[in-house]
Amino acid sequence: MAAPAAVAADSTAPTADAALDRIRTIVGPKGWTDDAEAMRPHLEDWRGLFKGKARMLVKPATTEEVAGVVAACHDAGIPIVPQGGNTSLCGASTPDDAGDGIVLSLVRMNRVRDLDADNYTLTVEAGCVLADVQAKAADADRYFPLSLAAEGSCMIGGNLSTNAGGTNVLKYGNARELVLGLEVVLPDGRIWNGLRGLRKDNTGYDLKQLFLGAEGTLGIITAAVLKLFPKPTDVRSAFCAVPNVAAAVTLLGRARAESGDAVETFEFMPRLVLDLVLKHFPDTQDPLQERYEQYVLLELVSTASGESDLAAKLEAILESAFEDGLVLDAAISQSEGQRQEFWKLRENASEAQKLEGASIKHDVSVPVSRIAEFYDAAWERVQQVDGACRLVGFGHVGDGNLHYNLQAPEGSDGKAFLAKWEDFNRAVHDVVVEMGGSISAEHGIGRLKREELAHYKDPVSLDLMRTLKAALDPKGIFNPGKVI
Amino acid sequence: MAAPAAVAADSTAPTADAALDRIRTIVGPKGWTDDAEAMRPHLEDWRGLFKGKARMLVKPATTEEVAGVVAACHDAGIPIVPQGGNTSLCGASTPDDAGDGIVLSLVRMNRVRDLDADNYTLTVEAGCVLADVQAKAADADRYFPLSLAAEGSCMIGGNLSTNAGGTNVLKYGNARELVLGLEVVLPDGRIWNGLRGLRKDNTGYDLKQLFLGAEGTLGIITAAVLKLFPKPTDVRSAFCAVPNVAAAVTLLGRARAESGDAVETFEFMPRLVLDLVLKHFPDTQDPLQERYEQYVLLELVSTASGESDLAAKLEAILESAFEDGLVLDAAISQSEGQRQEFWKLRENASEAQKLEGASIKHDVSVPVSRIAEFYDAAWERVQQVDGACRLVGFGHVGDGNLHYNLQAPEGSDGKAFLAKWEDFNRAVHDVVVEMGGSISAEHGIGRLKREELAHYKDPVSLDLMRTLKAALDPKGIFNPGKVI
Repeated sequence: MAAPAAVAADSTAPTADAALDRIRTIVGPKGWTDDAEAMRPHLEDWRGLFKGKARMLVKPATTEEVAGVVAACHDAGIPIVPQGGNTSLCGASTPDDAGDGIVLSLVRMNRVRDLDADNYTLTVEAGCVLADVQAKAADADRYFPLSLAAEGSCMIGGNLSTNAGGTNVLKYGNARELVLGLEVVLPDGRIWNGLRGLRKDNTGYDLKQLFLGAEGTLGIITAAVLKLFPKPTDVRSAFCAVPNVAAAVTLLGRARAESGDAVETFEFMPRLVLDLVLKHFPDTQDPLQERYEQYVLLELVSTASGESDLAAKLEAILESAFEDGLVLDAAISQSEGQRQEFWKLRENASEAQKLEGASIKHDVSVPVSRIAEFYDAAWERVQQVDGACRLVGFGHVGDGNLHYNLQAPEGSDGKAFLAKWEDFNRAVHDVVVEMGGSISAEHGIGRLKREELAHYKDPVSLDLMRTLKAALDPKGIFNPGKVI
Repeated sequence: MAAPAAVAADSTAPTADAALDRIRTIVGPKGWTDDAEAMRPHLEDWRGLFKGKARMLVKPATTEEVAGVVAACHDAGIPIVPQGGNTSLCGASTPDDAGDGIVLSLVRMNRVRDLDADNYTLTVEAGCVLADVQAKAADADRYFPLSLAAEGSCMIGGNLSTNAGGTNVLKYGNARELVLGLEVVLPDGRIWNGLRGLRKDNTGYDLKQLFLGAEGTLGIITAAVLKLFPKPTDVRSAFCAVPNVAAAVTLLGRARAESGDAVETFEFMPRLVLDLVLKHFPDTQDPLQERYEQYVLLELVSTASGESDLAAKLEAILESAFEDGLVLDAAISQSEGQRQEFWKLRENASEAQKLEGASIKHDVSVPVSRIAEFYDAAWERVQQVDGACRLVGFGHVGDGNLHYNLQAPEGSDGKAFLAKWEDFNRAVHDVVVEMGGSISAEHGIGRLKREELAHYKDPVSLDLMRTLKAALDPKGIFNPGKVI
């Protein structure tokens, strides 16, 4: 295992073995392992696309321990892959094959440090599971709106490091917008304490922005002050059949206007998504009696106290949309249980795709005004690559974000399909970029899209990114090979 | 006029005179002046605290011209002070006394480049006046929520460069949250084109965050894609007398909950603010018959189509608050004209203070949960400095942001009062920092608070800021002497 060049040239640098000894002392016996079996789940990603190696899995329990571990690695030039719930969809949280680094898991840093209900803030450590963060806010009659399919296992540190999106961005913004303060361990082992719960703070550069969405390449987020909101007092969902994507976008605009911007989620899915979920999750069912080609899961939320008029609002919106042909049929949830049934159809979409076989994901966004045009234009381009491929294009139409996923032809050889990966990427991403869109809307870059980023991003952006990386992590030890 | 050290050492650098010639050629006769009279308003700040010198005032008409001017300055090592509406309250947009640089005004870059109503985005150049931006959005039945007292003259480029706050942050966030894309000229004259109108884009580091709130020290913002919102269909304002700051904070929480988070603004002001405005603006009047010690301007907004229940909501909130002693008396606006009357009382607060004589501003924030405690604790500390000083502590209680301003004793010598400037600063800012607050909530740092920042900010933050500055602007030509 060759040491990185920068270190080889420095004869005073400690050896890797000495550094690992130092780390073991810092974190104690509960804080590390090099057992192959224990390490395995930390060395490969959720989809099984990336498998790597590491010298050791390190699990510090405190910020000071993280800082100590990083300092040891910095001195010896040992690469570090920070890891939360390891639910990345682009290989951002697993190491490469070199095996010369460590995986630093934040799993033991899962304390709630402070809850200030009057300030609408919650201070948590990076290893808190997202669902637990949501629950903690709810206990205090508050709401933390970040919500995504992996919420039962992903961790808030990873959510922030990847600027996670999810289903509530339309109303509440991305993860970036839900953070007031951060605590970060820098690549040289120093701790940056930016844990402040302020709505307004213009004292110089907003340093936390550097680390949000940087996928652990510039700093390791160890804790955060999260922004809370009033807890919803009423939520109503409708599962609607719509004639096409354009109608869905029009429906969104009307629902926003007529409800007074009460639309919390607006998820589009074609029939194929429903079919795959119904097939692979036998406890789910089609909410509508007839079969349609496209659907929208629309959810209104109210935080007002007193009697709610949300159900009436939703009915009125759907009625007028039905009259104008924007909605073909719809079911409104009559209970929380039924609402959860609707959500199962959406939340199991990724898992169903995985169970169905080979698929290629495109997590893209375009301006909302162009989403219908994009949907068709990209499909034309994709069919030129493989006419038999199946389109699983679903997602957060309200944010212009589609998971424009491609599924191998039914019963086909996945390998032949996956061999065209790059051609499919080119087909979809070319259209995205032509429309001023993004080739990674919410999943990030990681290893999966690093080459794509280099291909599509303009040279000035790439140069600025490299400048930041070199300035903050000159030794390049934080999550090497990711993003840039 | 000594050339900067970096340039003196570089014998191949063009002379300043040659660079100025190059600039004159780039921008043409309409694009520059060195006439003393024409330059005067650009060399001093609105409050008259800072007066400086410059070789030339340059007014490029396009991004390419800005880039050309910056490249010429970069090559010759000439400092540049970017300037929008020059409404900074901390001396961020005027040059210092050295007189070796230029002022680069964005005033001629005031085009609207694109309006995409379906995408809820507006693309404007930096020199657009904020009020014009608001109007342009309104013309398209959309809403741009950034609103502050200087909106008739401040420019959007400056608003973004300073991450402006204002009266609508509670509901819509700071200027930073209202931007989807930026176009920026970098310190070496390259153009970074990040003009994308996407709600979700995780393709690497979010570079625009670097320039938002950096006060022109890292890049010159030339254009931006702004986020629009549904246009309010109804707005109702109440001018309320409250017993104290704590009651105001409680009222805020209740109004948010009972209205379904429809509170757009929540402005606190003590009687003295009202007295000063009534005194210096004879066309204003007290909305209430009796005299009270503290007031809140509360505004609810609705974007729902159809019949509005906002007036009834506001009445119900005030009635129950009155019963519980949180509100002593209140007037509800019965017309848009009356609403504007209420706003005059708030928006002329700064100007009235100026007309009244010497004052010292403290634009601070603390967690909302501590604002009442802060209000009293800081006052105690201030009175130890000067028992006769008057407190003009008003502002955006909903964001934890107070303009905790101090006014010289009535009829007193302003000079004696201003001589204690540093002692007053220390009194207020010490309490702010003890409570985890910010010594500059929305105005920024500029020249005014540079020393304060160095005093209060932790060394790691300062070092990170210097690292960024050195990485992006190694010659230090962008807005030197500001922020850090």
